[in-house]
Amino acid sequence: MAQSVEIVEVGPRDGFQSVKPFIPTATKISILEKLFAAGLRRVEATSFVSPQALPQLADAAEILAAALGLPALDAQVLVPTARHAARAINARAQHIAFVVSVSDSHNRSNVRRTPAESVAEYATIVAALPVGTKLRLNLATAFDCPFEGKIDEAATLALLDQLVAIAPQAEIALCDTTGRVTPDHVTSLFAKSFARFPQVPGWAFHAHDTYGLGTANTLAAWHAGVRVFDAAIAGLGGCPFAPGATGNVATEDLVWMFNGMNVETGIDIDALVDVAQQVATLPGGQIGGRVRDALAAKSRREKALA
Amino acid sequence: MAQSVEIVEVGPRDGFQSVKPFIPTATKISILEKLFAAGLRRVEATSFVSPQALPQLADAAEILAAALGLPALDAQVLVPTARHAARAINARAQHIAFVVSVSDSHNRSNVRRTPAESVAEYATIVAALPVGTKLRLNLATAFDCPFEGKIDEAATLALLDQLVAIAPQAEIALCDTTGRVTPDHVTSLFAKSFARFPQVPGWAFHAHDTYGLGTANTLAAWHAGVRVFDAAIAGLGGCPFAPGATGNVATEDLVWMFNGMNVETGIDIDALVDVAQQVATLPGGQIGGRVRDALAAKSRREKALA
Repeated sequence: MAQSVEIVEVGPRDGFQSVKPFIPTATKISILEKLFAAGLRRVEATSFVSPQALPQLADAAEILAAALGLPALDAQVLVPTARHAARAINARAQHIAFVVSVSDSHNRSNVRRTPAESVAEYATIVAALPVGTKLRLNLATAFDCPFEGKIDEAATLALLDQLVAIAPQAEIALCDTTGRVTPDHVTSLFAKSFARFPQVPGWAFHAHDTYGLGTANTLAAWHAGVRVFDAAIAGLGGCPFAPGATGNVATEDLVWMFNGMNVETGIDIDALVDVAQQVATLPGGQIGGRVRDALAAKSRREKALA
Repeated sequence: MAQSVEIVEVGPRDGFQSVKPFIPTATKISILEKLFAAGLRRVEATSFVSPQALPQLADAAEILAAALGLPALDAQVLVPTARHAARAINARAQHIAFVVSVSDSHNRSNVRRTPAESVAEYATIVAALPVGTKLRLNLATAFDCPFEGKIDEAATLALLDQLVAIAPQAEIALCDTTGRVTPDHVTSLFAKSFARFPQVPGWAFHAHDTYGLGTANTLAAWHAGVRVFDAAIAGLGGCPFAPGATGNVATEDLVWMFNGMNVETGIDIDALVDVAQQVATLPGGQIGGRVRDALAAKSRREKALA
């Protein structure tokens, strides 16, 4: 039987939130529909956060409603606190993704709480979670922090001890928030996490491509046994700590790599690249990835020769 | 003992040859000197080819002379035929790199010969090689051909049978000419090559980043046991078969990755990025890589905060 991976499209959340000019809700929904049509079956569709803090995601409830209208789309929504989780649940969210950073400084910067305070929020969320709601834990700065540098593996595992105890059923995404992790560290931390938390049903890897290692680190995670990978269409996202640099690894680059390795993604690369071309034109977006340009250049050349 | 790799800087050949406007010889020499100062100890310095076919490399003898003046720099020069190899030897080349493609169509396009004719050229070169001259074989389209698509491993190994018999002492670089190889294929072909040719003293991998897999494929080759890697400063090179797309993997991206993995390269990343910034401004150059932009953005931000 062929091997397969699940690609989680995080562009509608991680990508859009870094774009300053408001993207019309209808445009967001249209992109979501095209991603679905290209074969994506799991999306981080939006985030329930303060609309004052992140006006771009003020339409979270509308976006979630549209996502829930797409059959068999697993639409996870990011929440930073119990209050926003309740908002998401009220909006009928079926899949909650909670974010907490391992490093104190990044967690304060991101959600204005210490990691311990976020652990308490997580416990509150889990206690109130309706039966059947899926749960994911996005562990930011699991490898490296923009403020504190390389994160000791022991610190990440110690925080996971607390978080896994609260919700052993949650999938856990280890996130390379800065893009500065290298493959050896990815390999090592996943191996230790698998050994320490055999009860965790699933692990994911969230790569950034800021330093050109988005695919290399994803490959390392794949070899470590990870089968769920985050990526953003057109590499949309940028890096808030290094303006001008790219952020998320591009979905089309990961799909290209896995396709070439005969690992099934269920995604049509040509349809995906068409969406990526549209996303690449969004005003104010910082984009990345290589496959989009390479296939466009190939197509131009073929047309010129024809 | 720490592990180490040797990075072969191919920008002065593979990079410069794709730049249309002539780069002044003094500029080329200055870049060579800066690469050396950053710690690079092996460079594909130029190519002895027809100056009519490649006017950019018409100054090959001058460049080689400058490279030979840098102490302990291993300066390999690329040659496509026995005639040009003789020119290189006359110019005191100490290290000859011969190029042949596995695929018929690419070899004809590149050097106007069938692979069999190139094998005969190689035999002539090897027979005439002065004692002590180092020899490298650059095997183009070892994985994939712009005209013929994926290359069967059996075809690559069969051509290597002939080439290794001619010169078992040569280092062999398997080249991903199109950037379309995926890591599983890199792993597989190197494993088969190692098993079939135990007499070959050294293997190298030449990655392109056109599809975002330059670092991932290099990582696969590293895990397969390869310890010599080609790369071009600033990712200079482009892709002649997909104008507008990037080509060679960037030297600074590979150095960044190996540094992070505690694999010694002997190269100062900051000095290297300074050269990359200069190379990135060459008129007519198609550049790539991520580390250059990421470190520049980081530096801008730190200055702004200071």
